[in-house]
Amino acid sequence: MQSPDEKTGQLDFKEALELARDHSPVLSEKFSEMHCAELSELLLACRDDHQRQILIPFIPESLLGDTLLELPEGMQGDLLADFAPSAIGDVVEHLESDEVTDILQAVDKEIADEVIERLEPDDRRGIEPLMAHDEESAGGLMQAELFKVRDDWKVEKVLNVLRRWGEEIENLNYVYVVDADDKLRGVVSLHVLLFCDIEAQIFDVADGSFPRALAGEDQEEVAHIFEKYDVLALPVVDEEGVLIGRITADDILDVVQEEATEDMYRLAALSDQDDLSEPIAITAWRRGVWLGVNLCTAILASFVIAQFEATISQIVALAILMPIVASMGGIAGTQTLTIIVRGIALGRVTFSNAKRALFKEASVAMVTGLSFAIVIGIVASLWFPELGMKLGFVIALAMLINLCAAGLAGALIPLTLQRINIDPALASGTILTTVTDVVGFVSFLGLATVFLL
Amino acid sequence: MQSPDEKTGQLDFKEALELARDHSPVLSEKFSEMHCAELSELLLACRDDHQRQILIPFIPESLLGDTLLELPEGMQGDLLADFAPSAIGDVVEHLESDEVTDILQAVDKEIADEVIERLEPDDRRGIEPLMAHDEESAGGLMQAELFKVRDDWKVEKVLNVLRRWGEEIENLNYVYVVDADDKLRGVVSLHVLLFCDIEAQIFDVADGSFPRALAGEDQEEVAHIFEKYDVLALPVVDEEGVLIGRITADDILDVVQEEATEDMYRLAALSDQDDLSEPIAITAWRRGVWLGVNLCTAILASFVIAQFEATISQIVALAILMPIVASMGGIAGTQTLTIIVRGIALGRVTFSNAKRALFKEASVAMVTGLSFAIVIGIVASLWFPELGMKLGFVIALAMLINLCAAGLAGALIPLTLQRINIDPALASGTILTTVTDVVGFVSFLGLATVFLL
Repeated sequence: MQSPDEKTGQLDFKEALELARDHSPVLSEKFSEMHCAELSELLLACRDDHQRQILIPFIPESLLGDTLLELPEGMQGDLLADFAPSAIGDVVEHLESDEVTDILQAVDKEIADEVIERLEPDDRRGIEPLMAHDEESAGGLMQAELFKVRDDWKVEKVLNVLRRWGEEIENLNYVYVVDADDKLRGVVSLHVLLFCDIEAQIFDVADGSFPRALAGEDQEEVAHIFEKYDVLALPVVDEEGVLIGRITADDILDVVQEEATEDMYRLAALSDQDDLSEPIAITAWRRGVWLGVNLCTAILASFVIAQFEATISQIVALAILMPIVASMGGIAGTQTLTIIVRGIALGRVTFSNAKRALFKEASVAMVTGLSFAIVIGIVASLWFPELGMKLGFVIALAMLINLCAAGLAGALIPLTLQRINIDPALASGTILTTVTDVVGFVSFLGLATVFLL
Repeated sequence: MQSPDEKTGQLDFKEALELARDHSPVLSEKFSEMHCAELSELLLACRDDHQRQILIPFIPESLLGDTLLELPEGMQGDLLADFAPSAIGDVVEHLESDEVTDILQAVDKEIADEVIERLEPDDRRGIEPLMAHDEESAGGLMQAELFKVRDDWKVEKVLNVLRRWGEEIENLNYVYVVDADDKLRGVVSLHVLLFCDIEAQIFDVADGSFPRALAGEDQEEVAHIFEKYDVLALPVVDEEGVLIGRITADDILDVVQEEATEDMYRLAALSDQDDLSEPIAITAWRRGVWLGVNLCTAILASFVIAQFEATISQIVALAILMPIVASMGGIAGTQTLTIIVRGIALGRVTFSNAKRALFKEASVAMVTGLSFAIVIGIVASLWFPELGMKLGFVIALAMLINLCAAGLAGALIPLTLQRINIDPALASGTILTTVTDVVGFVSFLGLATVFLL
């Protein structure tokens, strides 16, 4: 694990702050030699936004946009809130269209509109259609900068035009071939272009079956296309097949990390906005919401226990053992839940094989349930010999019932949420532990009331 | 969510199996028109390895390797176990060096050695050094196929050689510039090469500060370099700086997904080998190991409760309320744990800011702890009016103590594991819930014994 200080050479945020407070010109100079990823690490290392605002004026305009984009989204918005529209305009001038959109989506709508109005007409025409798409769709990810040519051109003409206009496009790996209506007809990689006959027609060397994304497609689906076809950039088309943008593999890397973080956070009853660098009060509030939900379900479980007050007052051993049944159910259910949620995210669990996944999880639950029923039955019988075999039988049966319920719930909850178009990770964990707690307590204490009293 | 059936046109695995059983030549023909990702989805959809083995002979040799590589690692090994070394040799002939290595690492060492021996001398020289690296390091990820040129060549010569030899290299986006000792001196993208003066010396147009990976570097660190610099391929060098391979962005996409899955599984007490498509008995065994660990810690928690048997037998309300304190601690601890584990994986939590992260988590725990202490204190006082304010005070204090313990444990456990070079996600969850259960029960029942008896 490398500390940000090591990565940024000698300069850490404390030294930077000192230089900034002295209004030292050295700071701007040092910043201009750094990479935007290093600058963003330096900003992240600051204690609060106040310190960050001291440093920001020293960051060269050409690096500032990229630096801000590397920060968590919440922090971006907070820092940009202090910028005048004209200052934001200066920043976005150095960015590509997809990045401009990201910056504008982080500020208030009125400010964004004002910034867009101040843009050069050419840039404005590039940005406006991008702003119309959902941030988490292919359209929201794509950039307008790409190199497209007409299908009836010769390779020689393509090369000439490319030499004249292509230089400004970053990561230009593919040439997109379109017809007179701008409909995408094929894709040629630079690599192929280098080796083909300059007299050939470009359409003839293009790959007509190259994968593409639809503008409205969800970013998770776009990531699947990248993973499936191992391409470095993907063209984006609208419903008519008209080429409107492209997405590069480095943007997808961020998407994949973001989606994985989101699922992990949701499984852990965290808001996907939760961030190490935000103020304590905000984090406490975000966590508190989910802790509040859990408090309600925990009280529900206690209410279930309260129904068996008379039984527990006669046999205190039940109070001692009941958390074991609930805890095992919680863990087994979480195992299944995680497998299914991740399987859905990776595209491995689909409608067509959901039934089989459910069957497998239920079978695994039966096998582990039976095994641990026997183990806990023996342990309980030995621990409380005065209650003997009967107690062992009761806890064993409760364990089997709860692990089976856990397996079923762990699979059914995310599959059902997915079916009704809710993120399968959202709230799954809370619903699941409610099920395993309630089933665990009811089965154990209920069976005990019947067989032990 | 699209089903694999839709994606593979009309052909689903049942139809494919029928055609295979009829020895129909149509099947090979249909398979040869499919993409390897579609073929692997079809194999995944099969009920078991027996069905998969019926289909495999119909998959064209040129697609079989790529198809197998899309399958989960365990399944790869099981299916390849039925191949003769000569058959594996035929399969790997169609693959790039990094893919050959992946296939050979999935089979027994003797078989792999035999396959390597049968390779053409040229191919063997490419593969052997790759096999020496750890699968999860830059060296294990890289491929030997790349395009390198000497630093004193002119651009014109580079272009000529590229036209003659470059065609066979997939995703060739960068030309690597080396000195007489094969040490990497810089990188030129194809894109830049197209626009420069053909009389220039290649070294002068190369980017000397292009990022690179060391062969021994962990794949997670390599993914960070990709994310930081937004490149599409990264050269890999040995300790002397000699260029030995390259890693492309599409391989890193798989790494990022794999690492995220691993962390998610470990946080949920799952083996990272767990897979939907493996047999029930194996999954039950893998899950059972972690359930067994949890059983031990749950029994430990029950043993703690047993120490307060006398108290519980006098006040049954304690048995009813105690799961609430433990459950809230478990959730709050999991929240912190997930934030820290993911922060470490994304490189956001490092040595230098670990102290601050710890301080923040402890503060959030204090704030939420105080809030929920007040809420549960009031709820408990109203629920059991005969015990009144005293009970409310006891459960409030226990809640505060347990949420603070949860916050500290949730941050300290992964940070400590990371410090001693153990995966911070591994077993963190189990250790954490043991802490929150034990602290929850001891503080609540202990305080009750002191104040309520």
